Amino acid sequence: MLSISKRAEAMPLSPIRKLAPLATKAEENGTHVFYLNIGQPDLPTPQVGLDSLKKIDRKTLEYSPSQGFKSYRKKLTKYYEKYDIHLDADDIIITTGGSEAVLFAFMSCLDPGDEIIMPEPGYANYKSFAIAAGATIRTIATTIEEGFSLPKVEEFERLINERTKAIMICNPNNPTGYLYTRREMNQIRDLVKKYNLYLFSDEVYREFIYTGSPYISAFHLEDIEQNVILIDSVSKRYSECGIRVGALITKNDKVKEAVMKFCQARLSPPLLGQIVAEASIDAEEGYAEACYEEYVERRKCLIDGLNRIPGVYSPIPMGAFYTIARLPVDDTEKFCAWCLTDFNYEGQTVMMAPAAGFYITPGSGKNEVRIAYVLKVDELKRALLVLEKALEAYPGKVAVAR
Amino acid sequence: MLSISKRAEAMPLSPIRKLAPLATKAEENGTHVFYLNIGQPDLPTPQVGLDSLKKIDRKTLEYSPSQGFKSYRKKLTKYYEKYDIHLDADDIIITTGGSEAVLFAFMSCLDPGDEIIMPEPGYANYKSFAIAAGATIRTIATTIEEGFSLPKVEEFERLINERTKAIMICNPNNPTGYLYTRREMNQIRDLVKKYNLYLFSDEVYREFIYTGSPYISAFHLEDIEQNVILIDSVSKRYSECGIRVGALITKNDKVKEAVMKFCQARLSPPLLGQIVAEASIDAEEGYAEACYEEYVERRKCLIDGLNRIPGVYSPIPMGAFYTIARLPVDDTEKFCAWCLTDFNYEGQTVMMAPAAGFYITPGSGKNEVRIAYVLKVDELKRALLVLEKALEAYPGKVAVAR
Repeated sequence: MLSISKRAEAMPLSPIRKLAPLATKAEENGTHVFYLNIGQPDLPTPQVGLDSLKKIDRKTLEYSPSQGFKSYRKKLTKYYEKYDIHLDADDIIITTGGSEAVLFAFMSCLDPGDEIIMPEPGYANYKSFAIAAGATIRTIATTIEEGFSLPKVEEFERLINERTKAIMICNPNNPTGYLYTRREMNQIRDLVKKYNLYLFSDEVYREFIYTGSPYISAFHLEDIEQNVILIDSVSKRYSECGIRVGALITKNDKVKEAVMKFCQARLSPPLLGQIVAEASIDAEEGYAEACYEEYVERRKCLIDGLNRIPGVYSPIPMGAFYTIARLPVDDTEKFCAWCLTDFNYEGQTVMMAPAAGFYITPGSGKNEVRIAYVLKVDELKRALLVLEKALEAYPGKVAVAR
Repeated sequence: MLSISKRAEAMPLSPIRKLAPLATKAEENGTHVFYLNIGQPDLPTPQVGLDSLKKIDRKTLEYSPSQGFKSYRKKLTKYYEKYDIHLDADDIIITTGGSEAVLFAFMSCLDPGDEIIMPEPGYANYKSFAIAAGATIRTIATTIEEGFSLPKVEEFERLINERTKAIMICNPNNPTGYLYTRREMNQIRDLVKKYNLYLFSDEVYREFIYTGSPYISAFHLEDIEQNVILIDSVSKRYSECGIRVGALITKNDKVKEAVMKFCQARLSPPLLGQIVAEASIDAEEGYAEACYEEYVERRKCLIDGLNRIPGVYSPIPMGAFYTIARLPVDDTEKFCAWCLTDFNYEGQTVMMAPAAGFYITPGSGKNEVRIAYVLKVDELKRALLVLEKALEAYPGKVAVAR
């Protein structure tokens, strides 16, 4: 009998992309849409990365090794040294984007019915990959009022049972921009050690920390080296999301061996992407600084601008390039759709990601949106004005207490 | 507790790659290895494909749409028209290689415990992807003596039960090179229709059919349009395995919707690969013919050469660029390893894929190997001589009756 799998039925539509058809329609109707919904950096890819494509002199674009090119993995170890993360090239498995690293980590370490503890709101696709692996995400609530800091250790322990296999964090965080403190990371470490859990740590935004606070990698934590699986990607740090190059990093030999089975089944990660990624490590002097400075400016522009709009509140994100903001509306799913279907201000509108999609607990995040600051400052300013006008005109507006 | 998932433990090591460390060691010891084990074409990628990389003038290598570029999908519909396959661009979902298409098909259509019927020997990674999805492959035996033709319909029906959800074929076949006949395809069609099963049809080798027999796509079969999920890839037809661009093609809207959830979770297929693949459709005049002619010659050289070696037998493969050959040895796993560790002829040896890895039934294929003819004729000739010498020297040699 032709039927769709239960896992496919359980998989959520991407909160980032589900409104896309409405945006397309708005554009077809002549409305300009400011895309605040997706973490697609508009900054340039390093010139050396782009140039590497012009220098390819292969006659055949053949498979690369299932684990990724050794030359690239060796070069990556030097990159990580700068962050005080000490790796052997064989600790690094190159994946097709960070996405595949998450999928393979879950597939390799979790059985159906196993549980992962994750702070919410969290990156929506973790849930999709957990469903693909038959695992369940149990959430620790963090709130906009508390600036998305982690709750006390008891909240974690309340969720731990014999099915608990892992804690998953994203640091700096997507979607909140939160950066875990030394105290919080030590708390996670203690839990991981006490219960012998895996720690899946997605650290793709380490380049983008704005507060002078230290970046604490899962690999900086003592005594849990065998438990850590680091998820990484070059997408954000070199503005090259399309090349699909990420990495799964672990010092646990059994995990490596398991992950490599999945890697061999899919034959190889993208050849061309690896060439670009390897070249990008040698980005021109000042590249990282210029990107960083640009995000600092945009962050200030966005957060100040949001908090100036009556009824709107955003905490100050410490890293990444997102914020979760609270809007004075009945339901951001409705509001974000309405912005695309029923509203424009001087021919312009905004597309945002309703935050409910980043929560697993039903009913959470109904008055929140995720906004990515991946537009130029002038565009962000204009988008903020359009958002303000939209909130004024929206019929489902409510008064919101700070 | 830190443990590896049961699915990872159940996943086989790739029969193509598991001997790789021995080959590396042989090379380090100065032995030249002829790689007959892997379907990595050595023919050139189309020049227009290579040139397309030099013409990229993007400043940012950004995400492409989750479904793949529309321009590419539109152009693909014209390619398929040439094979009398009539598609809408939205029937095509671009995937990260054919591998991802298989994984997403299984993940979208099959629940844990569901069963797929597949002729064996079969492409080894189907098993890995089935394990990833929690599904079970039930096999229909085909034999070297019968030239790998399909058995009678009763053999299929014997396996069908309430958990049976799909039939999976690869046509032309990897690893056997077999091409399903009109009669066989009609038989499959009748089963698919009678039991309302999915038909997963991997047709990545359609360019390589050497007998004048017709290529019968799953989409040519009447009345089962909603049941067909076609797996495709540009890897083999344009010798560009490394770009990781494939496709999942279906006219079933529910399947499309389910597959797109997985596609959105992994964000996008490779941007650069799609650029190359789209350009490659316009390969220079004579490109396809030149590749075809080359494989025709290699096939003749390999099959004639194999059958000339005492005790060796290979049926004539009708398509793809593999054959399964029977060798006069006790166990091809041992023999293939021995070729890499204990043998060389004038400083040369061969690497082949033991066929047991392409069978699911334990004990099958123990005296068979898969050989890919992706080397130049001169190298193939030399590899055949080296193989003959290896068989003469091998201590585990047995007499084999044709």
